[in-house]
Amino acid sequence: MITKYTHGKPVPTEAVTAVLPSQSPDSFPFACEWENGKFRFTFPMADGDIVYGLGEAPRGINKRGWVYESYCSDDPFHTETKSSLYAAHNFILLSGSRTFGVFVDFPARVRWDIGYTKADTAVITIDGADFDIYVLTDGAPRDIIRAFRRAIGKSYLPPLWAFGYQQSRWSYPDAATVDSVIEGHNAAGIPLDCVYLDIDYMERYKDFTVNADAFPDFAAYVKEKRAQGIHLIPIIDAGVKKEDGYSVYEEGRANGYFCKKEDGSDFEAGVWPGMCRFPDFLNPEVRRWFGEKYKTLTDCGIDGFWNDMNEPALFYSAEGIEKALDEAASLKGENLDLSRFFHLKDVFMGLSNAQEDYARIYHNIGGTLVNHQRVHNLYGASMTKAAGEYFQRAFGEGKILMFSRASYIGAHRSAGIWFGDNHSWWSHILLNLKMLPAANMCGFLYCGADLGGFNENATRDLVLRFLALGVFTPLMRNHAALGTRDQEGYRFENPADFRDVVQVRYRLVPYLYDTFVKARENDDLIFRPLSLDYPDDKIARECETQLMLGEECMIAPVYEQNVSGRTVYLPEDMTFVKLSGERVTKQPLAKGLHYIDVALNEVPLFIKKGKSIPLCRPAMRTGELDLSSVETLCS
Amino acid sequence: MITKYTHGKPVPTEAVTAVLPSQSPDSFPFACEWENGKFRFTFPMADGDIVYGLGEAPRGINKRGWVYESYCSDDPFHTETKSSLYAAHNFILLSGSRTFGVFVDFPARVRWDIGYTKADTAVITIDGADFDIYVLTDGAPRDIIRAFRRAIGKSYLPPLWAFGYQQSRWSYPDAATVDSVIEGHNAAGIPLDCVYLDIDYMERYKDFTVNADAFPDFAAYVKEKRAQGIHLIPIIDAGVKKEDGYSVYEEGRANGYFCKKEDGSDFEAGVWPGMCRFPDFLNPEVRRWFGEKYKTLTDCGIDGFWNDMNEPALFYSAEGIEKALDEAASLKGENLDLSRFFHLKDVFMGLSNAQEDYARIYHNIGGTLVNHQRVHNLYGASMTKAAGEYFQRAFGEGKILMFSRASYIGAHRSAGIWFGDNHSWWSHILLNLKMLPAANMCGFLYCGADLGGFNENATRDLVLRFLALGVFTPLMRNHAALGTRDQEGYRFENPADFRDVVQVRYRLVPYLYDTFVKARENDDLIFRPLSLDYPDDKIARECETQLMLGEECMIAPVYEQNVSGRTVYLPEDMTFVKLSGERVTKQPLAKGLHYIDVALNEVPLFIKKGKSIPLCRPAMRTGELDLSSVETLCS
Repeated sequence: MITKYTHGKPVPTEAVTAVLPSQSPDSFPFACEWENGKFRFTFPMADGDIVYGLGEAPRGINKRGWVYESYCSDDPFHTETKSSLYAAHNFILLSGSRTFGVFVDFPARVRWDIGYTKADTAVITIDGADFDIYVLTDGAPRDIIRAFRRAIGKSYLPPLWAFGYQQSRWSYPDAATVDSVIEGHNAAGIPLDCVYLDIDYMERYKDFTVNADAFPDFAAYVKEKRAQGIHLIPIIDAGVKKEDGYSVYEEGRANGYFCKKEDGSDFEAGVWPGMCRFPDFLNPEVRRWFGEKYKTLTDCGIDGFWNDMNEPALFYSAEGIEKALDEAASLKGENLDLSRFFHLKDVFMGLSNAQEDYARIYHNIGGTLVNHQRVHNLYGASMTKAAGEYFQRAFGEGKILMFSRASYIGAHRSAGIWFGDNHSWWSHILLNLKMLPAANMCGFLYCGADLGGFNENATRDLVLRFLALGVFTPLMRNHAALGTRDQEGYRFENPADFRDVVQVRYRLVPYLYDTFVKARENDDLIFRPLSLDYPDDKIARECETQLMLGEECMIAPVYEQNVSGRTVYLPEDMTFVKLSGERVTKQPLAKGLHYIDVALNEVPLFIKKGKSIPLCRPAMRTGELDLSSVETLCS
Repeated sequence: MITKYTHGKPVPTEAVTAVLPSQSPDSFPFACEWENGKFRFTFPMADGDIVYGLGEAPRGINKRGWVYESYCSDDPFHTETKSSLYAAHNFILLSGSRTFGVFVDFPARVRWDIGYTKADTAVITIDGADFDIYVLTDGAPRDIIRAFRRAIGKSYLPPLWAFGYQQSRWSYPDAATVDSVIEGHNAAGIPLDCVYLDIDYMERYKDFTVNADAFPDFAAYVKEKRAQGIHLIPIIDAGVKKEDGYSVYEEGRANGYFCKKEDGSDFEAGVWPGMCRFPDFLNPEVRRWFGEKYKTLTDCGIDGFWNDMNEPALFYSAEGIEKALDEAASLKGENLDLSRFFHLKDVFMGLSNAQEDYARIYHNIGGTLVNHQRVHNLYGASMTKAAGEYFQRAFGEGKILMFSRASYIGAHRSAGIWFGDNHSWWSHILLNLKMLPAANMCGFLYCGADLGGFNENATRDLVLRFLALGVFTPLMRNHAALGTRDQEGYRFENPADFRDVVQVRYRLVPYLYDTFVKARENDDLIFRPLSLDYPDDKIARECETQLMLGEECMIAPVYEQNVSGRTVYLPEDMTFVKLSGERVTKQPLAKGLHYIDVALNEVPLFIKKGKSIPLCRPAMRTGELDLSSVETLCS
């Protein structure tokens, strides 16, 4: 059962598609109070209760013991003590002594103190008076998740080739580099479906332009790559370069499509192209206009995109720079004491993504100027809806690959997400794993992390172990940042190991796509914490290094360096399968703890008793997969 | 066997006390080459070989698969991709297909590529032409470690009370706060031996001064605390405040005791007190002078110190600030493009610990001005020697608690170390564990990490789990940074759990002190990787979440949130002991994998078959421990 409680006049978020009557918060089932205009509600947690949810968020599958804040943030340091990442996914589920779900439909800040201040108490604080809260009760955790997913509508469906292996880097700036990447994979026998174009493919970072020096005939080049079975996936950023004569800028300015300042002039801030203006995606007319812009690229044969920088990231504003430079000037010739030194450093450090800048932004919502801070978490989601709505109109479902960095529940109907700018850290293999069921709960089925890690240098073994998890994630993309070590499989010693791992993905595409489609149809999870399937098994209940996949499998990636395997817990008898290239080994294992050997070129998988999965012959492209080659891998 | 290879005229580091003949590097047993004035040597690593060592360094017990740099660094972000922390501990040990140790006695940068670039190759690059390299062969890994330890001399011996529980915070700035901390522990029944005085006890951060407002009669106060069984441990920083009339500054200036610039004037940089000068600790006369300064505080009854900021940390220099402000001024009124914006930000970000500033420093070594970059890694070690040499002269061995942030091998004879400014991250429990055997190999037996984590906010469960590891580390100190959540045990809900854990420490003090003294006498390890004891057991060999302790025990702390225990691997039959306050439970467990339940107030310990350890009754102070209460805890 879902009950909707409404207070004030919520900004429409379009997160929930189900039409439900509003109850007054007077009948709200949790202890609640108002303080300084904020609404706070509280519930107790018993020992052993698990709190799931919050989608793309830091820390564990069980969110207890930390404080989270829903505020889409461009923050590339995904350490344990962060509270906000790129997304705002306001759904949680308590399971244990009681079972219920809560969705806070509110596009500004929400603070989730899940036993951080007091271990047995959850305190959720909504930074405003206009909100909807949905409370879900009755049934097992999975039933409640399905009920929530039904209420928010069917998840985005990508094309099948989006389940192929994808290679990215900031940047492959020109056709010659893209060709060398494809050739590198081909020569090493590593299957590949997509190559990414990060910001440098554009003409000075202008959305919907292509650098003609780098790609002299882009449409012909895209066509040539498609003939090789390769999809090029360009990036689109939220900010539109302020440049006279640039059509997107000129149209946006002429039509009043950009976000405003309080005085009605256009808000500006510096991002990749330098000074930019920001389409007011919360306005449906602007969404329609911006969405149609993707046609520039789809007309060239492009059929996949990633939307970036849409929290929105703001590197600096003229106002911020001016203030910082004034501060610097005032200190010239002074003998700085410590507090003034640290203050000066903080001033420059704080120029990017400054709260002062966000507070300067206004949106036109139904003719009213609304401050950005009231709707911050809708910005990236609305950009992605702009694209998704256009693709739906122009191409129908399942044709265009589309995923976004920033998101809010509701955008799951338009696109997938990736988990943003992670690091080449071993710990981020597990962070990736832990985000998967949480993202699924919030509707985001097509998702994944930057395999191998985006920031800083990777090692060969890290990339292989990361890929061996990525074999199972709908988005399987290897991506790395400017200035870091080359991270494409063929760049390392013995690329055959990379071929072996990626070939496993292609062998599993029929299974993974089917599992995806079923989860979408049934409003269900692809990935589940073991606790959902084995709620009475204490070890399974607390296990956060393994996941259930579909109805048939369990996965348990290796996540440490310098090991030849890992310890795994089987909550029931299963068959331990090792896949490597075309090789398959099987070993029945009894319920309990086991140490399993897993070489760097092997992918471990566990099949439940009496279950089986399809396995096809590998191919170099998803389009070349021979479905007649499918055999059944039984437990 | 130890063979010493010498090239050029090495700066004396006093790391090795054994007198050994020098061989020419012509007979050096590894492949080597010169490139741009750097000496590089290489050795292959077979599959399964383990490389131990590097003391206080990032990543795993097995150092393979990363690149490390010996360069003492004030860096509080101990993430996986860092290469340098506060220490430079240049000893490694390869174990597996061959067994040998290497100590690079060289006080400038050494780069250790342990299979980062090429998985099967170690490449060690020495940034200079004047060095000693010691190669150790013959015997098992532990034999080689003992031979190395014999060569570098006996480790520092702390007083027994230094094995008591220690509470720290940045800061307890005055007597009233210190009293409240002691009272808080007393009221909660949490044993305590030491309270720390971070920088605010001083008069404007001036070494060897005490803020008279905060401590009106410091000597009387210290005496009063000692009567309560509490030792106050003040911090001493490397930089000496530039302030006319301040005696330490005046004496240092008058005698030419401070580090110089190339023109012979004193080098200055800003640290906590504002502009400072830096004692030239590499000069024995300066060490003697600075060491005697500690008398100011020992005369007040102080018998423990921690030396900080001695990498040395440099927040800024006048030259750096001027350059940054000039850059800022030149951009005033300009329309910043992206590269200039990021450059500007980098300029301010790069003000602290700038290589340009280190390069400005000169030391007087035997009458010759030597650039700091040639001897960087000796600075903190020499500061600590200054203190250690004085304590040895004035008080003899085992009387004064002394540990340092920066260190180099050799300083292990004068002091312990703590592992610097870590974070309240669950992953830092394991980082702490992994550093212990590595630090022991390099001579540092008295060591430990900031329990509960220094930077950012801790949770109750994190502090308890961290402490349950800290129960076994010689330095057991809870420490937290300014602005973070209160982290003293009595500040959290149900402080009885903290009492239960800390009481276990006091019950184990006789055992731990004895184990420490034995390890020191025998030039041995307190903590060993399981692989040293069970070299043929693959699971043990790769295990980096457990350690052997002494001859009797194995430890296996819980290191994840929201779990009621952990999986543990027993390489032989052992007795699983849970200690909590005065309670002891025992359970025999067979060799193999087990899931063990460990509550937040319990400390898990494993005793080998046929072994036993002494256990005494807990007390509120180490001085109150009743050794007649010792009973034997058998396996």
